[in-house]
Amino acid sequence: MTSKVGIVMGSDSDIPAMQEAEKILKEFGIQTEVRILSAHRTPELAAEFAKSAAKKGIRIIIAGAGMANHLAGAMAAHTVIPVIGVPLEGSSLNGLDALLSTVQMPPGIPVACVAVGKAGAKNAGFLAVQMLALSNKELEKQLVEYRKQAQEVVVEKNKKLQKERE
Amino acid sequence: MTSKVGIVMGSDSDIPAMQEAEKILKEFGIQTEVRILSAHRTPELAAEFAKSAAKKGIRIIIAGAGMANHLAGAMAAHTVIPVIGVPLEGSSLNGLDALLSTVQMPPGIPVACVAVGKAGAKNAGFLAVQMLALSNKELEKQLVEYRKQAQEVVVEKNKKLQKERE
Amino acid sequence: MTSKVGIVMGSDSDIPAMQEAEKILKEFGIQTEVRILSAHRTPELAAEFAKSAAKKGIRIIIAGAGMANHLAGAMAAHTVIPVIGVPLEGSSLNGLDALLSTVQMPPGIPVACVAVGKAGAKNAGFLAVQMLALSNKELEKQLVEYRKQAQEVVVEKNKKLQKERE
Amino acid sequence: MTSKVGIVMGSDSDIPAMQEAEKILKEFGIQTEVRILSAHRTPELAAEFAKSAAKKGIRIIIAGAGMANHLAGAMAAHTVIPVIGVPLEGSSLNGLDALLSTVQMPPGIPVACVAVGKAGAKNAGFLAVQMLALSNKELEKQLVEYRKQAQEVVVEKNKKLQKERE
Amino acid sequence: MTSKVGIVMGSDSDIPAMQEAEKILKEFGIQTEVRILSAHRTPELAAEFAKSAAKKGIRIIIAGAGMANHLAGAMAAHTVIPVIGVPLEGSSLNGLDALLSTVQMPPGIPVACVAVGKAGAKNAGFLAVQMLALSNKELEKQLVEYRKQAQEVVVEKNKKLQKERE
Amino acid sequence: MTSKVGIVMGSDSDIPAMQEAEKILKEFGIQTEVRILSAHRTPELAAEFAKSAAKKGIRIIIAGAGMANHLAGAMAAHTVIPVIGVPLEGSSLNGLDALLSTVQMPPGIPVACVAVGKAGAKNAGFLAVQMLALSNKELEKQLVEYRKQAQEVVVEKNKKLQKERE
Amino acid sequence: MTSKVGIVMGSDSDIPAMQEAEKILKEFGIQTEVRILSAHRTPELAAEFAKSAAKKGIRIIIAGAGMANHLAGAMAAHTVIPVIGVPLEGSSLNGLDALLSTVQMPPGIPVACVAVGKAGAKNAGFLAVQMLALSNKELEKQLVEYRKQAQEVVVEKNKKLQKERE
Amino acid sequence: MTSKVGIVMGSDSDIPAMQEAEKILKEFGIQTEVRILSAHRTPELAAEFAKSAAKKGIRIIIAGAGMANHLAGAMAAHTVIPVIGVPLEGSSLNGLDALLSTVQMPPGIPVACVAVGKAGAKNAGFLAVQMLALSNKELEKQLVEYRKQAQEVVVEKNKKLQKERE
Repeated sequence: MTSKVGIVMGSDSDIPAMQEAEKILKEFGIQTEVRILSAHRTPELAAEFAKSAAKKGIRIIIAGAGMANHLAGAMAAHTVIPVIGVPLEGSSLNGLDALLSTVQMPPGIPVACVAVGKAGAKNAGFLAVQMLALSNKELEKQLVEYRKQAQEVVVEKNKKLQKERE
Repeated sequence: MTSKVGIVMGSDSDIPAMQEAEKILKEFGIQTEVRILSAHRTPELAAEFAKSAAKKGIRIIIAGAGMANHLAGAMAAHTVIPVIGVPLEGSSLNGLDALLSTVQMPPGIPVACVAVGKAGAKNAGFLAVQMLALSNKELEKQLVEYRKQAQEVVVEKNKKLQKERE
Repeated sequence: MTSKVGIVMGSDSDIPAMQEAEKILKEFGIQTEVRILSAHRTPELAAEFAKSAAKKGIRIIIAGAGMANHLAGAMAAHTVIPVIGVPLEGSSLNGLDALLSTVQMPPGIPVACVAVGKAGAKNAGFLAVQMLALSNKELEKQLVEYRKQAQEVVVEKNKKLQKERE
Repeated sequence: MTSKVGIVMGSDSDIPAMQEAEKILKEFGIQTEVRILSAHRTPELAAEFAKSAAKKGIRIIIAGAGMANHLAGAMAAHTVIPVIGVPLEGSSLNGLDALLSTVQMPPGIPVACVAVGKAGAKNAGFLAVQMLALSNKELEKQLVEYRKQAQEVVVEKNKKLQKERE
Repeated sequence: MTSKVGIVMGSDSDIPAMQEAEKILKEFGIQTEVRILSAHRTPELAAEFAKSAAKKGIRIIIAGAGMANHLAGAMAAHTVIPVIGVPLEGSSLNGLDALLSTVQMPPGIPVACVAVGKAGAKNAGFLAVQMLALSNKELEKQLVEYRKQAQEVVVEKNKKLQKERE
Repeated sequence: MTSKVGIVMGSDSDIPAMQEAEKILKEFGIQTEVRILSAHRTPELAAEFAKSAAKKGIRIIIAGAGMANHLAGAMAAHTVIPVIGVPLEGSSLNGLDALLSTVQMPPGIPVACVAVGKAGAKNAGFLAVQMLALSNKELEKQLVEYRKQAQEVVVEKNKKLQKERE
Repeated sequence: MTSKVGIVMGSDSDIPAMQEAEKILKEFGIQTEVRILSAHRTPELAAEFAKSAAKKGIRIIIAGAGMANHLAGAMAAHTVIPVIGVPLEGSSLNGLDALLSTVQMPPGIPVACVAVGKAGAKNAGFLAVQMLALSNKELEKQLVEYRKQAQEVVVEKNKKLQKERE
Repeated sequence: MTSKVGIVMGSDSDIPAMQEAEKILKEFGIQTEVRILSAHRTPELAAEFAKSAAKKGIRIIIAGAGMANHLAGAMAAHTVIPVIGVPLEGSSLNGLDALLSTVQMPPGIPVACVAVGKAGAKNAGFLAVQMLALSNKELEKQLVEYRKQAQEVVVEKNKKLQKERE
């Protein structure tokens, strides 16, 4: 059974942000299972997804939601596989509500929280790859390679800046 | 079947705050069913409690928790009876985390949020009585009476102050 | 006398947000009485509205305002029927001012606070229906039905997403 | 009729803070009328106080409360004499709730807000004196004198510090 | 010598907001003296303005600035006439910086702080009128009249809403 | 080579909080390597630790610090193994500074952030175990067992509460 | 060897803000060395830049970044020349994240933090000039001159305003 | 004329915090001139101090105050020597008020802001030494030495920890 990463989000309005996670996982050749699931509107489907995830080959769950983000916590409550929470902007409070409701989990049921919004979703993808790479040397190599390229991008941007300054 | 109010809290450390709600309900002669239930550690018991509440004669649920307070939301997700959320202090962030994770519920699944901490728990009790009084003239009278007494307390405190100022 | 829900707001600029509450109540066939009333500019009309609400068949008051939202509190001070407060955006502080001035009510005079802005107004509507359903089996059924449909919407959105991912 | 300053507070627990305002006014020989009045528990007494204040010779009202501080706003809604609001600590949110609910008043009904807590209460006293001094040359002189003394205190503390550093 | 109100602001970018204060004062027939003065860029002109204000017939100073708003405090430090501070938006922090640096004045040197931005500037104008009205019965009448009209506006808006709802 | 988890902290004053992570890891029989390392005072030792961690058998790094918590980010910058960040209280800002500087990582270099303080440190331990359990069935079983016990604790506390209420 | 000021930023998206610093330094005839360097993506280049800065004639480093701004801290950790940190907007949290992660440095490794965004970048330029002027009388004169002109700008804006008011 | 660093603070209650700056400067053999000066109570003495500082051999000013900290800004407005601002706790708002009023300076008049409280005061001392070291090779050496020792302290603490873990 292939390793997969589950990506769940509370609403279809969260797709643009959560696609950032999906893209990163695709770049690393990791299968994803993407679901719209609501901790509040479809609590049983959400619980069911988390409970059956491991059996379906899902190794990690990435959960994104705005406002009072309970989705990541609801996932974490029903499984022992790692859950990464992405707080999304989705109210006038700029994501501070989603951030605090994702990160401030009580002892025993951790959620690995990343930054608010698209940047966080992207990092959720990377973090999932890093976790899978713990038992996959090939992925680890790809990560090292990816970092080199990211570094190279900064170096190139810097070179461009130097030229403009000459 | 007598009307009851369910009071749930995430941990026994929440008892001192949540007792404020219980006391108010007792003053109004309303039966309570108090439970320690965790949205994260006992998600199924929590869901079960909410789902079966109405059948057991529970008309309203009051849910208190600190940090990322998902308990009120988890209750609300599994029942259509009103859920009152009490954000509790329980982290260095002074209850702001619990407040935002209780109040910022997504459309469709409301939680009636009250103030942070003991003051909020007390008001959760009053709010539950007010809801029950919608179909209970006797309770309504008691509420009006209670208000008069609360008013009298302020008046008496003021009189005492006036005497001291003479 | 038919049951009604009062919807009050501090200014006509609050109509777009507060209509969300009105719409929900209409969907459930509940009569509304909508008023522009200011706790500060028309304090006596506001007090009078709250005091006479019960007599006019108003069972619940929903009050929305921005900035220092005192309207919900002013309603609550003059009646023992449940008051739902909707904090609205209306200043540079993104509704945090309205949220704290709505939710942090002192002991004895509760306000049932919902989320900031339109999402909160919508939930205020649902919360009022839930309260009325405590003594109205028909409404309770409608709520259960509504939840099923809301659940179905999420399920459909998810299906659409699955198709796009195939 | 002598000029007086009204000092109102929401609870007797606010006396220690609000006495700071009273002390300053006494130092300037200004009569005060101190009341415990709650915008929520005794709304009509509060409204009545504000409405009749001017007739009783009260020229300025200082209002202090914690949590959702509606007292200053309630005063301001019922009179055109200046109202000074003192946000008090009284919840886990350190007075941020009281500050925002005091200062963010809607256009037309101003409240002159001062700092949170005792420092603010003291300054409320000074501000009231400054307002009265607009039509009282004697008070103005006293204020100038007081400032000189306050300046002298700083100068003396500085001298003491210089000695210790020698 | 006619009574005047000084309006000072830190930059010409503050004119649109601070004009709200000016407009209100004009409506009440009060002369204004409007200045661009910076507590940081022209500290001596600012100090000089405050020090000589009373002699020039200025009875009250309204000071508006964004970011670290020291202008109101700088005014207050150099005069005993009342100073009203208007925190303005002018940074990414939405005026929270200006609010805290305006309102949290140390004991002895009060600033009467109003809401952030245009709404606050407008209220600064009203507050100044209220202070002047303490010794001007005509102004007091105008204020009472203005309040009635403001009340009427709300009543009219409400009527319009009622018609739309018929 | 045995799997180990590295636990690094910025100062010995962080030991009481970070020991919570250590305890959890010990309960699961996982070796730890605990270091005091500062991103600012010993940047090269910190970089060196992160760079050589994988070679020494360290599979995951848990990094805790207060104030501007750069330690987790500094770890993440030098390795592709997962880094868990624990924001600690250590300033008057209650850990909000540490939270935002830990969680708001830029795209490409994720940190898995947990709650502020001891609760977060404990969850960092659990999260590390969950990651290791991805390739260790025995650990996974222990986690499931641990959850059952945690659930049992809640159930027992609830039973005790029920008895007290009888 | 001429004195230079290093300007580093985490990404090319920071150029528009950080150019404000560059412009000021150019106005004062100070050479700059501008680099895109990331504390997280190119940690070794960043460390190397800081370590070799003094040798290359760089006397001061200005570092700007958004989100969790570790760049200024990373610079400060590797050199004893003064480091000025500019927190940039770059997330939904309006720069509060960057501000706290820049300013709340632990004892021993200071960063001189300025305001969020462009205004801060500009002031970083001025601050660098002020530091260089400590041993450069010519620069000091220029600064005094610049201040006079800035003062003149305010005076002119004020004159224009006075004319409009005539 | 020997180089000196001026340390000013708004009140004698700030001495315990500001002494941290003084201690660091003493360790580096730098003369200090310590003053209690208030931007609001003694504005002219404060302005005078800043204006005459350079002539008295003061090369840098460190200014600490709580609440609305205008002292650093007031210093900066009257001199072109570098001013370091230390936001102090001194209100219920935990120093957030002092932080924002210190750091959010408008363009043209920078303040080099450090962390809130004692940690910040200590770093203000270091920052001043770093600035002076720009033209003092001996100081630069001492700083490098100091850093080594600080590094050694971390290394020793780590060793102690390792022993305890054996």
